[in-house]
Amino acid sequence: MTESAASLRVEGVAELDVARTARRGYPEAVYCEGKSVAQVRAIAEALRDRAREHDDDDGLENGPLLFTRCAPEQVHALRTVFPDAAVDGVARLVAWPSQPPSPCGGNVVVLCAGTSDLPVAREAWLTARYLGRSAELVVDVGVAGLHRVLDRIDLIRAADVVVVVAGMDGALASVVAGLVCAPVVGVPTSVGYGAAFDGLAPLLSMLNACAPGVGVVNIDNGYGAGHLAAQIAAPPRSQSGA
Amino acid sequence: MTESAASLRVEGVAELDVARTARRGYPEAVYCEGKSVAQVRAIAEALRDRAREHDDDDGLENGPLLFTRCAPEQVHALRTVFPDAAVDGVARLVAWPSQPPSPCGGNVVVLCAGTSDLPVAREAWLTARYLGRSAELVVDVGVAGLHRVLDRIDLIRAADVVVVVAGMDGALASVVAGLVCAPVVGVPTSVGYGAAFDGLAPLLSMLNACAPGVGVVNIDNGYGAGHLAAQIAAPPRSQSGA
Amino acid sequence: MTESAASLRVEGVAELDVARTARRGYPEAVYCEGKSVAQVRAIAEALRDRAREHDDDDGLENGPLLFTRCAPEQVHALRTVFPDAAVDGVARLVAWPSQPPSPCGGNVVVLCAGTSDLPVAREAWLTARYLGRSAELVVDVGVAGLHRVLDRIDLIRAADVVVVVAGMDGALASVVAGLVCAPVVGVPTSVGYGAAFDGLAPLLSMLNACAPGVGVVNIDNGYGAGHLAAQIAAPPRSQSGA
Amino acid sequence: MTESAASLRVEGVAELDVARTARRGYPEAVYCEGKSVAQVRAIAEALRDRAREHDDDDGLENGPLLFTRCAPEQVHALRTVFPDAAVDGVARLVAWPSQPPSPCGGNVVVLCAGTSDLPVAREAWLTARYLGRSAELVVDVGVAGLHRVLDRIDLIRAADVVVVVAGMDGALASVVAGLVCAPVVGVPTSVGYGAAFDGLAPLLSMLNACAPGVGVVNIDNGYGAGHLAAQIAAPPRSQSGA
Amino acid sequence: MTESAASLRVEGVAELDVARTARRGYPEAVYCEGKSVAQVRAIAEALRDRAREHDDDDGLENGPLLFTRCAPEQVHALRTVFPDAAVDGVARLVAWPSQPPSPCGGNVVVLCAGTSDLPVAREAWLTARYLGRSAELVVDVGVAGLHRVLDRIDLIRAADVVVVVAGMDGALASVVAGLVCAPVVGVPTSVGYGAAFDGLAPLLSMLNACAPGVGVVNIDNGYGAGHLAAQIAAPPRSQSGA
Amino acid sequence: MTESAASLRVEGVAELDVARTARRGYPEAVYCEGKSVAQVRAIAEALRDRAREHDDDDGLENGPLLFTRCAPEQVHALRTVFPDAAVDGVARLVAWPSQPPSPCGGNVVVLCAGTSDLPVAREAWLTARYLGRSAELVVDVGVAGLHRVLDRIDLIRAADVVVVVAGMDGALASVVAGLVCAPVVGVPTSVGYGAAFDGLAPLLSMLNACAPGVGVVNIDNGYGAGHLAAQIAAPPRSQSGA
Amino acid sequence: MTESAASLRVEGVAELDVARTARRGYPEAVYCEGKSVAQVRAIAEALRDRAREHDDDDGLENGPLLFTRCAPEQVHALRTVFPDAAVDGVARLVAWPSQPPSPCGGNVVVLCAGTSDLPVAREAWLTARYLGRSAELVVDVGVAGLHRVLDRIDLIRAADVVVVVAGMDGALASVVAGLVCAPVVGVPTSVGYGAAFDGLAPLLSMLNACAPGVGVVNIDNGYGAGHLAAQIAAPPRSQSGA
Amino acid sequence: MTESAASLRVEGVAELDVARTARRGYPEAVYCEGKSVAQVRAIAEALRDRAREHDDDDGLENGPLLFTRCAPEQVHALRTVFPDAAVDGVARLVAWPSQPPSPCGGNVVVLCAGTSDLPVAREAWLTARYLGRSAELVVDVGVAGLHRVLDRIDLIRAADVVVVVAGMDGALASVVAGLVCAPVVGVPTSVGYGAAFDGLAPLLSMLNACAPGVGVVNIDNGYGAGHLAAQIAAPPRSQSGA
Repeated sequence: MTESAASLRVEGVAELDVARTARRGYPEAVYCEGKSVAQVRAIAEALRDRAREHDDDDGLENGPLLFTRCAPEQVHALRTVFPDAAVDGVARLVAWPSQPPSPCGGNVVVLCAGTSDLPVAREAWLTARYLGRSAELVVDVGVAGLHRVLDRIDLIRAADVVVVVAGMDGALASVVAGLVCAPVVGVPTSVGYGAAFDGLAPLLSMLNACAPGVGVVNIDNGYGAGHLAAQIAAPPRSQSGA
Repeated sequence: MTESAASLRVEGVAELDVARTARRGYPEAVYCEGKSVAQVRAIAEALRDRAREHDDDDGLENGPLLFTRCAPEQVHALRTVFPDAAVDGVARLVAWPSQPPSPCGGNVVVLCAGTSDLPVAREAWLTARYLGRSAELVVDVGVAGLHRVLDRIDLIRAADVVVVVAGMDGALASVVAGLVCAPVVGVPTSVGYGAAFDGLAPLLSMLNACAPGVGVVNIDNGYGAGHLAAQIAAPPRSQSGA
Repeated sequence: MTESAASLRVEGVAELDVARTARRGYPEAVYCEGKSVAQVRAIAEALRDRAREHDDDDGLENGPLLFTRCAPEQVHALRTVFPDAAVDGVARLVAWPSQPPSPCGGNVVVLCAGTSDLPVAREAWLTARYLGRSAELVVDVGVAGLHRVLDRIDLIRAADVVVVVAGMDGALASVVAGLVCAPVVGVPTSVGYGAAFDGLAPLLSMLNACAPGVGVVNIDNGYGAGHLAAQIAAPPRSQSGA
Repeated sequence: MTESAASLRVEGVAELDVARTARRGYPEAVYCEGKSVAQVRAIAEALRDRAREHDDDDGLENGPLLFTRCAPEQVHALRTVFPDAAVDGVARLVAWPSQPPSPCGGNVVVLCAGTSDLPVAREAWLTARYLGRSAELVVDVGVAGLHRVLDRIDLIRAADVVVVVAGMDGALASVVAGLVCAPVVGVPTSVGYGAAFDGLAPLLSMLNACAPGVGVVNIDNGYGAGHLAAQIAAPPRSQSGA
Repeated sequence: MTESAASLRVEGVAELDVARTARRGYPEAVYCEGKSVAQVRAIAEALRDRAREHDDDDGLENGPLLFTRCAPEQVHALRTVFPDAAVDGVARLVAWPSQPPSPCGGNVVVLCAGTSDLPVAREAWLTARYLGRSAELVVDVGVAGLHRVLDRIDLIRAADVVVVVAGMDGALASVVAGLVCAPVVGVPTSVGYGAAFDGLAPLLSMLNACAPGVGVVNIDNGYGAGHLAAQIAAPPRSQSGA
Repeated sequence: MTESAASLRVEGVAELDVARTARRGYPEAVYCEGKSVAQVRAIAEALRDRAREHDDDDGLENGPLLFTRCAPEQVHALRTVFPDAAVDGVARLVAWPSQPPSPCGGNVVVLCAGTSDLPVAREAWLTARYLGRSAELVVDVGVAGLHRVLDRIDLIRAADVVVVVAGMDGALASVVAGLVCAPVVGVPTSVGYGAAFDGLAPLLSMLNACAPGVGVVNIDNGYGAGHLAAQIAAPPRSQSGA
Repeated sequence: MTESAASLRVEGVAELDVARTARRGYPEAVYCEGKSVAQVRAIAEALRDRAREHDDDDGLENGPLLFTRCAPEQVHALRTVFPDAAVDGVARLVAWPSQPPSPCGGNVVVLCAGTSDLPVAREAWLTARYLGRSAELVVDVGVAGLHRVLDRIDLIRAADVVVVVAGMDGALASVVAGLVCAPVVGVPTSVGYGAAFDGLAPLLSMLNACAPGVGVVNIDNGYGAGHLAAQIAAPPRSQSGA
Repeated sequence: MTESAASLRVEGVAELDVARTARRGYPEAVYCEGKSVAQVRAIAEALRDRAREHDDDDGLENGPLLFTRCAPEQVHALRTVFPDAAVDGVARLVAWPSQPPSPCGGNVVVLCAGTSDLPVAREAWLTARYLGRSAELVVDVGVAGLHRVLDRIDLIRAADVVVVVAGMDGALASVVAGLVCAPVVGVPTSVGYGAAFDGLAPLLSMLNACAPGVGVVNIDNGYGAGHLAAQIAAPPRSQSGA
């Protein structure tokens, strides 16, 4: 292990894994839920300062910085550090630099079962784009009206990886996996009530998909789904360059 | 309550609810799991003797006797009491008299998602028939190969009630409910493993069906599903005659 | 599948299943929980505009629009779009047109176990009425005072379908199912505390009802129960016309 | 604490709480599940020898010895130690001396919802009798046929404590508690399948009984229910004599 | 059943079980959680009016009215209906008439494991007193400092029934049950965090008490515990008078 | 949908999705758990006969047939139908034809945390190979001895997809995902006891992996993991050729 | 038991276990969650007065007083009683006297997996210090960047006990336990979302650590972890002096 | 990491962590549940051969080999490899060499709540002894007869670490922790039934012990408890020598 100098310490707060792009191909994102505004700001400043020290003022070298699950006050603090960052209010995502890189590798299609699943679906879609993939978002195609997904079957079959975001019965993951060649990333959401048990129902449903080919991430984990989809659709060289 | 004399007592063992046909329109079935062979035999003999006393030697008057979830030894004991009973080894069902009554009321279609769901699906299908409905059974039409259910859509849409029997992701119930007018009875099964948690996954999935119109019964409860379907598809007079 | 043009797209927000009445006999309702006020308003406007385009200014042709689980701000927004809509504050339901259609088919009786179950019970009762059935609501007849339900036995036995709304032990569903011919739709509620586990207790209780004939919907799902009851009590032609 | 010499040690196996009758009014029972035949035998011999040493050859002084949940081999071993013990095969209970003491205190009524609940119900009924109460057992009076319990209402209302043994929906406990003055001891059983989750459903149902006055014991815990009922119905002096 | 006229209807809101004192010996309490202020007030007014009609202006005849789990606004509304009611802010209990009846029957001792359990413990203690028993409350005697409960052993052993209120590990119920003759009513509370899972830990602990003689009620159910304790310690005639 | 003739019916038993290779790129496997020997044999014969009818006597055209989770009697039956099939007793897998196809696409590495996880790991490894990928299996490299996995880091980093099979704490998935560029397929196993809760512990652990890039399949689902890995590592044309 | 006078009663509120230092070596802490401000203040005043009565004005004799999980209003109240107390806002801990005692015994190292785990980690770290141990806190060393923990391996191996605080997958506990001789105290936290289920995931993960040597405390229980660590690293005489 | 050559590979079966004694101070044990007899034998032979190669024929150098959870056939196989191994049938433990090393460090006391907990308690007790500690086992001292544990208080207080093995309510851990200075290792067992949920009840109870100072291991994990206790009671040099 020669990665000893691979951390950026924010004293008493964080030890940022700045070697992650070199090691894994994608930078570490900052998960903001559960962090105070002051902590988020301190982390952002440390990352900005490091970029400047590396003469990476536009953040293009080390890949984009993503701040996920940002509350409004955290967004406000981040804007003071990165005035030109992009903010997606629905996905609660802040990205710097604001433009995703030019896409390479395969194509990602994100299917969103219902309107209430949008925050998670947009987080997945944006993450895949900021990590370098072309990605498309299709909204409100749950199985209650099956024609909505069948109407898009050509688009879906053309994808190199399909992300299915669904709450309640989570049935869309099974249905889609049964129709396509590409791997499916299933993202159960906490949308629903009662016996949905905060996402347990679609989680179990996706884990038990009767069609093979579904890899499941945590409930509401749009970021993780976009990251995994970006890895699956990565251009061939990304593997060999590790 | 004038139903005081409505019970048939098997001393120390059971108090049979022989007024149920009069009160509800359908006779009480005998659930055999958890009963000893001797208990099942004693109950069967009491019911046979009562039928004889009522000059109902062919069992036609009070509706058929159904013994559910019968182990082989219990089947053996029942055959000594009702030599001409019908036995379905897959559904573990014993019925007397052996012939279902002539069907009346609406039509029941039972959809079975996979081969392993057959015991439950057959129990539902036979129960609906013995309780007086015409019923059809369609096997192995899970959503992993969606064309299998879409190919039968005319048959399914012609039903007055659809019973969907599925384990694993239980997604078939949602998909079917989204395609038909008729009410759907969902029967989750314990088919599957791991995170299916003995039927919990399809149970939650069906309770959270994104298409309204699904009434769910207990895991593996083919008998209950057939009974409920028979009630839903009952001829109009059956309600008024209560 | 010839239903390709069956969706009404609200760009980036929703893909409304406007073919549902044609396909299933009942229109899609809009579940408002988890949607922003702006999203609800955009959906409502799209539906209103479509009704106008179809010269269906009074909404009579395509069936009533139901907006369920509306928060006060959502109700406010809906009233700006449909000034003459009906609003039930307890059930959190907004309906347009405000008058239910003339009832046809069978009769629905909704039994509400306790006062705290009223929001769910009223949602079921109103849904059944807006979907075209005659329906009656009976309040506070839990089994702790059994005479309350026994006193109504004639009314209950005259129903074509009984909806039982109960939290805590959910025992009313079993008791009622044991007394009537008609199918029972069980709606567990999150009323209770502690080991009620937000409705898990009555959910399990109803799924294990010792009397057959209970179809269970999701916890607090008054809309789904009213919808299922309307389907069960639909006039015979509705099935054949699918 | 002067009870230091209150234990009977079976070296490396058990430390019997022989002071329990003096301290609590009832002797310690030996729970045999999970013990080897050799361990059960060693415990039985130690208890027999101690009785002899105390010139209590007929076991009348210290209260009866109860061995619960005995497997057949354990019964066999116990019979070699106490040849005149009573054995109830259904309840899996071995008692010595074989005759319950003359009853004193109030009256216990044990209600058993279904035939499959009999082992637990008999264990409760026998325990109450061996601990000194008069007790009656009523079998198969579940709420699916409500008249069965209403027909016995006078008997039930005459009890000083009612034990309700029920699996599946456990609804009988609520119904009975709503009809009587006496406290109810609820015993959920593991009878049922699927969403009964080995007794979880009736356990939660009884804990959430909408009628107050139900104290719940562990699933299948007939012994504990009989013991608690015996305490509740104890004659007034038993408390003062502690 | 001659109890047909036994209900007091508050139209569309409640059907009060006013026959409960005659039938069970204790009046129905009004559980206020989940009820609106208007509903609570309407119920209170109906009960007050009925008392007046029965010339029971001081509420002495039918037993005290208890309103449980009252939020401050509900307390305010109740005071406008019953200006002289007693209010316990910690227990969130409102009682009318304000004075408990003269105690009869046995003695109740309520043990409260920790300070945070006080709301539940006081609800149990006050309920037992308003239902006619003498009752004592002992605070903060959890097993972490075992001497605290051993120091009170004489008081506890003198009780006819002991109520143990405890969260976290719930161990106090087992320890106490092992030391006394009287039955123990166990009340698990939601006090604790993490793996206490809102009271699940002490609930399971009490259900599995290694000492027999514990009847468990719902988590945080102080009212139910006080009611059950009152029944257990009722004077002998209360049973015979049912 | 033009796939109407895409099923092979085994009357009353199964409806085989023989169009799956054309639609998804991989043939349907036969999951044998829960099927009778007769059912497995009937399915195998139908598939063999179809292969012959299509002049595909060596099974090379439509991809290999996989029979998973085979009990010894089922293996025996399958050998009578496919005498030259390959059988892996540890993985409980039967494959025909016996030789995997020549590998194409990327490389799969399967990491097995402990010896007891071998059945699942071998099922994943063999499935990936029979579906056309080169695959390597590394055994017993759990994190308790971290050097075991660090010693193989070059091999692991050279993979295009890594399958991690682990029970107990499931920590290996997080650790590996943090070290590599490639996507990780996590397979929790039921290895462990007590609070492993039959695989729940590693399932939750993998779903909450602190390193992004883990897609999780069902507990013990080696087949699904191998299938998903084969899809992820598929050669670029397989996506475009769908 | 001669500890009868070992309690300090705050009437109707608490019975403080002031003998705990004598009995166990460490004083009782006051857990403030669930206590009202008035209760916390009353307890603090009683403890302060007792210290004065014992001429222990600087609190040095009986060990430090710790108030845990303090809300801001509670902190405010405590400051009026102990103006010179130390307050840690992140850990929500108030300590008096403000200075930890001089450390004795072994060394404690607290590892904190992520920034969001800091409140719990600081509570553990401060508790160990106030209970007399030297302790070090290392922040943000989760396994997603394994080098962060491997870089500190010498520091960690020098500890006499290691406390690992981690949410999400909880994998750090297994990894660390596999690398060191010293016992590990695992503290799962509620950091995470979805299938972390409020700390259940890391709790199960730590309980199933594949490396032996991990003792687990409750979710988020920093106080308990610091206490246990202090006991494990206590100087030899503390045991013999009990 | 210089431990690269630290593994002993049994090809395709296991990769034994033979560096563990050097790294952690204690050798790796072989957990036999879930391993085939052939696998266990192969592992044993590899370990024996390695000992011989290192001229460690009596196994004294590298610490004892422990094989845990051995089924009888596995014991038989192990005896052919290590004819002079010690076998404890109750604990299902095989140890070689048969004699534990001379004890050093502190003293371990293992408390076993009931007879049925003996297999787990003996496993903990023997493990601590084979890992080099003096250890004592006290049997059947559950809290139902509190005097049994209070009678041993001097022995328990003299321990450097106390292991509490208990099923059902697990209350013994709290009670003991409240009485002693030393840390307590809590081992919940699966002893019990019904709502013990295979050890969940005592697990939660111990995690929520109201007395601090309890570190909990997995359900039935006697080996892990003995290992952790040995670490806690290790002589001071063992830490410094790591």
